[in-house]
Amino acid sequence: MPDLYLPLLIAPLLGLTAIFFAVYLIRDLLKKSKGPAKMVEISEAIRVGANTYLALQFFIAALFVAGLAAILGWILGVAIALSFTLGAILSGLSAYVGMRIAIYMNVRTANAACCSFNESLSIATKSGTVAGLSLTGLGLLGVGLLYIIVGDPLLLLGMGFGASLVGLFARVGGGIYTKAADIGADLVGKVEESIPEDDPRNAAVIADQVGDNVGDIAGTGSDVFQSYVMALVAAMIVGLAVYGISGLLYPLIVAAVGVVSSLVASFFISTKKGDAQKAIYRGLYIAVGLVCLITLPLSWLIFGGLREYLATVLGTFTVIFLAWLTLHYTSLRRRPVQDIARASSAGPAMNIIVGLAKGFESAVPSVLVFAASVLLSFVVNGIYGVSIVAVGFLSINATLVAMSSYGPIVDNAKGIVELSGVSHGNALKIIDDLDSVGNTTKAVCKVYALGTSAFAQVAIFSAFIQATNLRVINVANPTVTAGLLMGGVLSFLFVSQILRAVGNSAFRMVEEVRRQFAEIPGLITGTAKADYAKCVRISTRGALKGMFFPAIIAIIFPLAVGYFIGVEAVGGLLAGNLVSTILLGFMMIQSGASWDNAKKYVEAGNLGGVGTATHQATVVGYTVGDPLKDAAGPSLDFLMNLIGSMSILFASSFLAYALFA
Amino acid sequence: MPDLYLPLLIAPLLGLTAIFFAVYLIRDLLKKSKGPAKMVEISEAIRVGANTYLALQFFIAALFVAGLAAILGWILGVAIALSFTLGAILSGLSAYVGMRIAIYMNVRTANAACCSFNESLSIATKSGTVAGLSLTGLGLLGVGLLYIIVGDPLLLLGMGFGASLVGLFARVGGGIYTKAADIGADLVGKVEESIPEDDPRNAAVIADQVGDNVGDIAGTGSDVFQSYVMALVAAMIVGLAVYGISGLLYPLIVAAVGVVSSLVASFFISTKKGDAQKAIYRGLYIAVGLVCLITLPLSWLIFGGLREYLATVLGTFTVIFLAWLTLHYTSLRRRPVQDIARASSAGPAMNIIVGLAKGFESAVPSVLVFAASVLLSFVVNGIYGVSIVAVGFLSINATLVAMSSYGPIVDNAKGIVELSGVSHGNALKIIDDLDSVGNTTKAVCKVYALGTSAFAQVAIFSAFIQATNLRVINVANPTVTAGLLMGGVLSFLFVSQILRAVGNSAFRMVEEVRRQFAEIPGLITGTAKADYAKCVRISTRGALKGMFFPAIIAIIFPLAVGYFIGVEAVGGLLAGNLVSTILLGFMMIQSGASWDNAKKYVEAGNLGGVGTATHQATVVGYTVGDPLKDAAGPSLDFLMNLIGSMSILFASSFLAYALFA
Repeated sequence: MPDLYLPLLIAPLLGLTAIFFAVYLIRDLLKKSKGPAKMVEISEAIRVGANTYLALQFFIAALFVAGLAAILGWILGVAIALSFTLGAILSGLSAYVGMRIAIYMNVRTANAACCSFNESLSIATKSGTVAGLSLTGLGLLGVGLLYIIVGDPLLLLGMGFGASLVGLFARVGGGIYTKAADIGADLVGKVEESIPEDDPRNAAVIADQVGDNVGDIAGTGSDVFQSYVMALVAAMIVGLAVYGISGLLYPLIVAAVGVVSSLVASFFISTKKGDAQKAIYRGLYIAVGLVCLITLPLSWLIFGGLREYLATVLGTFTVIFLAWLTLHYTSLRRRPVQDIARASSAGPAMNIIVGLAKGFESAVPSVLVFAASVLLSFVVNGIYGVSIVAVGFLSINATLVAMSSYGPIVDNAKGIVELSGVSHGNALKIIDDLDSVGNTTKAVCKVYALGTSAFAQVAIFSAFIQATNLRVINVANPTVTAGLLMGGVLSFLFVSQILRAVGNSAFRMVEEVRRQFAEIPGLITGTAKADYAKCVRISTRGALKGMFFPAIIAIIFPLAVGYFIGVEAVGGLLAGNLVSTILLGFMMIQSGASWDNAKKYVEAGNLGGVGTATHQATVVGYTVGDPLKDAAGPSLDFLMNLIGSMSILFASSFLAYALFA
Repeated sequence: MPDLYLPLLIAPLLGLTAIFFAVYLIRDLLKKSKGPAKMVEISEAIRVGANTYLALQFFIAALFVAGLAAILGWILGVAIALSFTLGAILSGLSAYVGMRIAIYMNVRTANAACCSFNESLSIATKSGTVAGLSLTGLGLLGVGLLYIIVGDPLLLLGMGFGASLVGLFARVGGGIYTKAADIGADLVGKVEESIPEDDPRNAAVIADQVGDNVGDIAGTGSDVFQSYVMALVAAMIVGLAVYGISGLLYPLIVAAVGVVSSLVASFFISTKKGDAQKAIYRGLYIAVGLVCLITLPLSWLIFGGLREYLATVLGTFTVIFLAWLTLHYTSLRRRPVQDIARASSAGPAMNIIVGLAKGFESAVPSVLVFAASVLLSFVVNGIYGVSIVAVGFLSINATLVAMSSYGPIVDNAKGIVELSGVSHGNALKIIDDLDSVGNTTKAVCKVYALGTSAFAQVAIFSAFIQATNLRVINVANPTVTAGLLMGGVLSFLFVSQILRAVGNSAFRMVEEVRRQFAEIPGLITGTAKADYAKCVRISTRGALKGMFFPAIIAIIFPLAVGYFIGVEAVGGLLAGNLVSTILLGFMMIQSGASWDNAKKYVEAGNLGGVGTATHQATVVGYTVGDPLKDAAGPSLDFLMNLIGSMSILFASSFLAYALFA
C-alpha cells in the first residue's frame, strides 16, 4: 500500500504538530511569574505530594500490566502484548503530562489573579489548551504510527485495552484519593469546626490539593486518552470491514482535522469582558464549525457522496446537544439546581431525595440524544454511519480536554491563594468567579468522555460480530438474557465498590482530622501546625487498596461469561453493560454537579445564604455528590472500554474453549 | 377439548377453595375484640380516610380504563378490551380486599398486644394468611375461568395489562400518598419538634396512618396480583407453543398446588416462644417443601420425565435464596446495616454514601441468582424451562403475601396503640418487637414481587418472538441498540418522576405541619387539636396528580418505539428495561430497608442510641430510603409488566404500521 503512505501519514504528522504547538505554548506560559515565595512553597508541596503518589500508583500498575502482558502474550500472541504495553505506557504518560502542566500552571494562575481577571483567565485557558493538544496529539500519533507499523486495526485494540486498564487505575485510585481527602476535610472543617475551605489548620488540606491533581487532572487525562483511542480504533476496524482502506482512512483524517480545528479555535478563547463561560463556549463552537467546514470537501473526495459527511456532522452536533443538556441540569442559573436548593429548606433528606430525582431525570434526555444519534447515523449510512458519528464526536477532543483542564487548574489556584494567605487586590473574588465556571465545564467534559466511550462501545458491537462470525446476538435467547443481566450487574458492582472504598477512606480521614483538632493544642487557634503527612498517607493507602478490585472484576466478568456461558452471552454482557453504564454515568456526573452548584447557589446569598440550616442541608448533598461525579461516575467509561476491547481480543479463544457454546 | 375440562377446572376450583377458606378464617378473626372505644375511634378515622381516598383513586382510574378499553377494542378487538377490563376490575378488587382485611385487623392486633404477645402475633399472621389466600385465589380463579371461557392464552394478556395498569395507579398513587405523609410527619415531628412518631399533635399523623393502608397494603395487594397473573399467563402462552395443551395445563396446576401448600403451611405459622421471625419463615419453608413434594408425581404424570420438575423446584428455591439475600442486606443483625449505622457517626452525608454503596452492592447477588436461575432452567428444559421456573417461583405467592401483609398490619396496630394513648401492659414493647420483624418481611415480599415480574418478563420475550414471527432480536443491530437504551431510559424517567412527586408533596406537607405548629396556639402542649384534614388533602392531591405521568410514559414508550422504530426495537426496549429495572428495583427496595434498619439499630441503643448526632444522621438515610423502597422501587414491577403485555398485544399492529420496519 505505498500510495497510501501519504494519507496515512497525515494523522501522525498532525498529531506531532499539535504536540509541538503545545510545547511552544507552554514555553511562553512558563515565563509568567510564579509569584511570592509563600505561593511557590505551597505549590511545591502539592507537586511533591502528587509526584510521590503518582510514582507509587504507576509502579504498582506497572507490575500488574507486566503480568497481564505476559498472559496476553501467551494466549493471544506477542503483537497484542506489545500493543497492550504501548497503550499502557501512553496512558500513564498522558496522565503524567496533564498533571505536570496543571502543577506548573496553577501557581501562575493564582499569582495572576492577584492583579488581573483577564490575565488569570488567559493563563488558565491556555494551560487547558496545552493539555488538550498534547493529550490528543499523543493519541493521534500513537494510533496513526502503530497502524502504519502493524497494519491491522484489530491489533490496535490491544493498545486500547492497555490504555483503559492503566487509565482505570489512575481514575479509580485518583478518585478515591481525592474524594477521601475532600470529604474528610469538609466534614470536619466546614461542618464541625466551621472553618473555611482550604484552611491551613485543616490536616487534610494538603491531601485535598494533591487529590485535585491526581484525581481530576491525571484521572481525566487518561480517561479522554483511552476513550479517544478506543473510539478511533473501533471506527477504523468497522471502516476497514465495510469500505476497505478508505473506510479505515477516513476516521484518522477526521480526527486529524479535529486536532487542527481545536488548535485554531484555541486562539479565540480570550475575552476582553469578564465572561469566562462565554469565551470557553465560543472556542467549542468555532472548533465544531471548522470540523464541519473542512470535512465537507474531504468526505466528498474520499467517498464521492455526502452520507459519511452527514454522520460526521451529526457527531459534532451531538457534542453540543449533550453540552447544553449538562449545562441545563448543572448550572446554578437553571431550574434543576434551584429546585434542589429550595427543597433543602426542609432539611438534608429532602435535598437528597430531590437531588436523586433530578439526577435520574437528567440521564433521560442525554441518553435519548445519544440513542437518536446512533439511530439516525444508522439510517443515513448503515453500520459505518454509526462508527463515523463516533469519529465526529471525538474529533473535537482537544477542545473538550482544554475545557476540562481549565477547571481543576483554577480550583487548585484557588487553594493556593487561600492557603498562602496572600490577599492583595481582590484575588479571591476573581478566582472564585473563574472557579464556578470551571464546575460546569468539568461536568461537560466528563459527559463528553462518557459519550465517547459509549459511542466506542456501539462500534465495538459491530466489530465483535465480525470477530466472532456470529450473525446475530439474540436477546430472546436466555443465555444472552443472562449475559445482559450480568452486564448490568457488573456496573452496579463496580460502582458500589468504588463508593465503598471512598466511604471507608473518608471515614478514616474524618477520624484523623477530628483527632488532630482534639489532640494538637493550639491547632484551632493557628499557633500549631497540622500533621499533613498523616492524611496524605490515609488517602494513599485507601487509593492503592481500592483501585484493584474494580479492575479485577472488569477483567474477570467478560472472561467468566465468555468461557462459561459462551460468546453470544458476551454480546449480551456488552449490551447490558452499555445500558446500565451510560444511564448510571450520566446520572452520577450530572447529579453530583447539580448538588455542588445547589450549595454554591445558596452560598451566593440565595435562600438565606451561608450559615442557615438550608446551607447545611446543601453541604450534605454536595458531599454525597462528590464521589458520584468524581470517582464512581467517570470510572464507568473505563469499565465499558475494558470489557469492549477484551471481548474482541478474546473472541476466538472463547469460541474455541467455551463450556456450553 | 372436553376431556380437558376436568384438569382445567382444578385451578379455578382450588382458587375458589382458597377464597372460601379465607372467608372462614376471617369470620373467626372478626370475633376478636376491637378493644377500648378510643382505639375503635382511631381505627374508624383511618378506615374512613382510606376508603375516601381509594374511592377517588379508583373513580379516576376507572375513567382512564374505560377510555383505554374503548381504544383497545377499536384497535385490537372486543375480546381484548373485555379481558383488559376484567383484569382492571380484579386488580382494583384485590387492592380493596387487602386493605379491608388490614383495616379490620389492625385494631384487633393492637388490642391483643395489650394482653399477649402470642395472641397479637397470631391475629397479625392469620390476617396476613387471609390476605394471601384471597388475593392468590382471586388470581387463580380469574385466570383459570377466563381461559376456559376464551380458550386462548394470548387474550389473557389483556387481563394482565388491565391488572398492571390499575395496579400501577394503586401503587404509585398510594406510594406518593403514604410517603408524602410519612416524610412530612417525620421531618417536622421527629426532627424539628422532637416529638415521638405517631404523636397525635402531629397534623400529618392521620394521613400517615391512612397512607400505610392505601400504599403498603392496597398497593402491595395489586402488585402481587398483577405479577402473579402476568407470570402465569406468560408461562401458559409459552407452554402452549412448546408442548401444546399439557404445556399450558402444567403452570395452572403448579399454581393450584402452590395455593393448597400455602393454605396448609399457614397452620404452622404459630409460636409458643416469642420469635415471630422464625414462625413466619417456618411457614415459607413448609410451603416450599409441600410444592416440591406434590409436583413430583404430577410432573412425572404429565410429561413422563423430570426436567419440568427440576425447573419447578429451581423456581421455589430461587424464592428462598432471594429471601436470604434480602435478609442479609436488610436485617439489623447483619453487617451491611451495621456498617451504615457506624458510618453515620461521621454525619448524614456518610450515611447516604455508605447506604448507596450497600444498595448498589445488594442488587448484585440478587440479580446473579436470578440470572443463574434463568440460565439453569434453560439448560435443563429449554425455553419452556424458563417459563416453568417462573411458575415454581410464583406458586408460593399466598405465603409471601401473608408475610408481607403482616408488616403493615402490625405497623398500623402500632400507630393505633400510640395514638390511643392506651398503655396498659407492655403493649408498646410487644408491638415494637412485632414491627421490627415486619420491616424485613415487607422487604422480602417486595423483592418477591419484583422477581415474579422479572420472570414474567423473561417468559414474555419468548412469547413476543412467537407473536411477531421474528426469528431473532439482534443486539448488534443499531435499531435494537436504540431500543435497549430507550428501555433503560424508561425506568430512569419513571423512577425520577415518582421521586419528584413524592418530593413535591412531602415539601408541601412539611410546610403545612410547620405552619400548624407555628399558628395553632396550644398544639405543642396538647391543649389544641391539629387539623388532620388539611394534611389528608395534601397527600390526596399529590397522589392523584402524580400517578398519571408514570402510567402515561409506560404506555407511550412502547407505542412510540413500536410504530416509529419497529418491532425489533421493541424487543430491545423490553430487554433494556428488564436490565435497568431489575437492578434499580433490588437496589431501591433493599437500600431503603437497610437505611430503615440502620436507624432502628441505633435506636436499639447501639452507637450512643437515640438523641445523638449519629441517630440524627440515620434519620436522614431512613427518610431518603422511604420513597425508594415504598414508592419508586416497587412501582417498577408494574412498568415491566405493562410494557411486556402491551408489546405482545400490539405486536401485529406494529408489524403492519411501523415507520421504518
